[in-house]
Amino acid sequence: MACWTSSRGSCGRASSSPEPVNLPTEFARIGRHFRPLAGPGALDLADDAAVFAPPLGRELVIAADAMVEGVHFLPDDPPDLIGRKLLRTNLSDLAAMGALPLGYLMTVSTPKATPETWFAGFAAGLASDQAEFGIILLGGDTTSTPGPISLSLTILGTVSPGCALRRNGAREGDGVWVTGTIGDGALGLLAATGRLADASGFLAGRYRLPQPRLGLTLHGVARAVMDVSDGLVQDLGHICRASGLGAVIHAGDVPLSGAARMADRLDLCLTGGDDYELLMAVPPDREDALRDAARTAGVGITRIGTFLAGDADVTVLDRDGVAMDFAVGGWSHFA
Amino acid sequence: MACWTSSRGSCGRASSSPEPVNLPTEFARIGRHFRPLAGPGALDLADDAAVFAPPLGRELVIAADAMVEGVHFLPDDPPDLIGRKLLRTNLSDLAAMGALPLGYLMTVSTPKATPETWFAGFAAGLASDQAEFGIILLGGDTTSTPGPISLSLTILGTVSPGCALRRNGAREGDGVWVTGTIGDGALGLLAATGRLADASGFLAGRYRLPQPRLGLTLHGVARAVMDVSDGLVQDLGHICRASGLGAVIHAGDVPLSGAARMADRLDLCLTGGDDYELLMAVPPDREDALRDAARTAGVGITRIGTFLAGDADVTVLDRDGVAMDFAVGGWSHFA
Repeated sequence: MACWTSSRGSCGRASSSPEPVNLPTEFARIGRHFRPLAGPGALDLADDAAVFAPPLGRELVIAADAMVEGVHFLPDDPPDLIGRKLLRTNLSDLAAMGALPLGYLMTVSTPKATPETWFAGFAAGLASDQAEFGIILLGGDTTSTPGPISLSLTILGTVSPGCALRRNGAREGDGVWVTGTIGDGALGLLAATGRLADASGFLAGRYRLPQPRLGLTLHGVARAVMDVSDGLVQDLGHICRASGLGAVIHAGDVPLSGAARMADRLDLCLTGGDDYELLMAVPPDREDALRDAARTAGVGITRIGTFLAGDADVTVLDRDGVAMDFAVGGWSHFA
Repeated sequence: MACWTSSRGSCGRASSSPEPVNLPTEFARIGRHFRPLAGPGALDLADDAAVFAPPLGRELVIAADAMVEGVHFLPDDPPDLIGRKLLRTNLSDLAAMGALPLGYLMTVSTPKATPETWFAGFAAGLASDQAEFGIILLGGDTTSTPGPISLSLTILGTVSPGCALRRNGAREGDGVWVTGTIGDGALGLLAATGRLADASGFLAGRYRLPQPRLGLTLHGVARAVMDVSDGLVQDLGHICRASGLGAVIHAGDVPLSGAARMADRLDLCLTGGDDYELLMAVPPDREDALRDAARTAGVGITRIGTFLAGDADVTVLDRDGVAMDFAVGGWSHFA
């Protein structure tokens, strides 16, 4: 196949005579919408692969995420926001590793009836975020699908050797910190599907357009970092397991947006996911450094709890100091 | 999200109360089937991304391809062969660039009802080919989908600087060469779907399990290379356009397997695709070097035509020297 030529697949042929395949349309689409996104090394999306010299003296950081229509985005979401969300959820992985964005590859599987305007909007959203985050398209693949739109993106970034931020470095006594506000994404899905009032559109906007927290200098500040995508409590459990610790957080300290406070759905905010905020373990003597980094990056940060010795249990205390019980999410059952 | 933790998505929730999400099952599946495939740098698939130091003094080659159930493989294809085909179509891109395999990331979107045995078979196929081709899993993502199984794989390889094999280097007078035999993949799809007799299973096997032509030392031998995935005539047109040339090939010289000769479907062999053989431009004075390289690699090679000055036209002559006309494939209409 190729550094972005369309692979037409073959099972779709209904008879023993191959059907005419409208490859010219496919190639024209690639040329019109995706080639303008390609950067150096992409070989104009016209070869079998991209070729690039990795930056000298840097390690590469690489992650891949898929997004499926009806699972990770709504069928009527604007295509530019779908493209940007696809890129941003992956940029959030780079942010969680302390990496700088370098480039990305993408596969796009769409039903045959997907209109040209969808591709135009999708590519326009990517172009906008490429400019904002300083990243280029390196390659990919376009295919048809009889199912929902299925997108997959692989992102590459770089870090100084040994400086990647891991999940396994938290220590007893470190504070549990988060960026931004928690719960807007989960509430935003309810809002976007008409199940929650959201007059300003703030919550739906947070669901449709995450803000990757790049730009925070966390090396030497945070001992463990990850991004919150599966829900705060669930993801805190990941750091705890990786670090061999437990944690206690105070629900009343978890930063909520005004809209989230209005919605009064604390359970969903704590377990809902789609936040793409950073969750960090920061020792007390580095809190000033964290505040400096946050101020420089223009990102809000909040301490919500403490890592404890123990068995990867995450305890959430309500305002009365009583442990909250989450029936949903399944996190507490994960061995 | 993560270097392979499951992203559960959120649109799937049917009510305003989030449904319990069976994350333990997902994580157990990742641990059971995919973690054993992970190599150095993958951080045990437990962080937000993989981290690795690129090999010193090498360029990186990277490509991504998607495969969708019902488009690129059949719903009842054995899962181990689906995994191997996914990896091999991408390995074929590395072969076409003259690159050595390094690692891969993968996203796997499956319906909720996909049985555990499917994942076990899929991973077993990958494990087998990882050992055969010397490549490791670096990361990925698992999601659910309401549609067909959708797979995406990003492959990384390395080449010596400046040695990547491109499509744009062919010159007038170079021979058009191919590896192996052409048309088995397209015929194999007919066979696998009961539309062509295939008593030995050879053709269906070629469709389900491509053989990436790694191991041929083509730098300094071939001036242009690509892999044949969209059909010989179509893909030869790609090299012609990239190189600013035309080409003539002789249908009678195109190497066919015994089974393909029996099938007597030359049109489909020349336009059908799914070959994953290499298509090369080789100057006459390097033909001995090509033969040496092929002998060393144990790969058959055949000269089927010549690159000509001209306008990216591909002419296919039949045994009587008459230009053949292909109604299907659309290649001749591509500007």
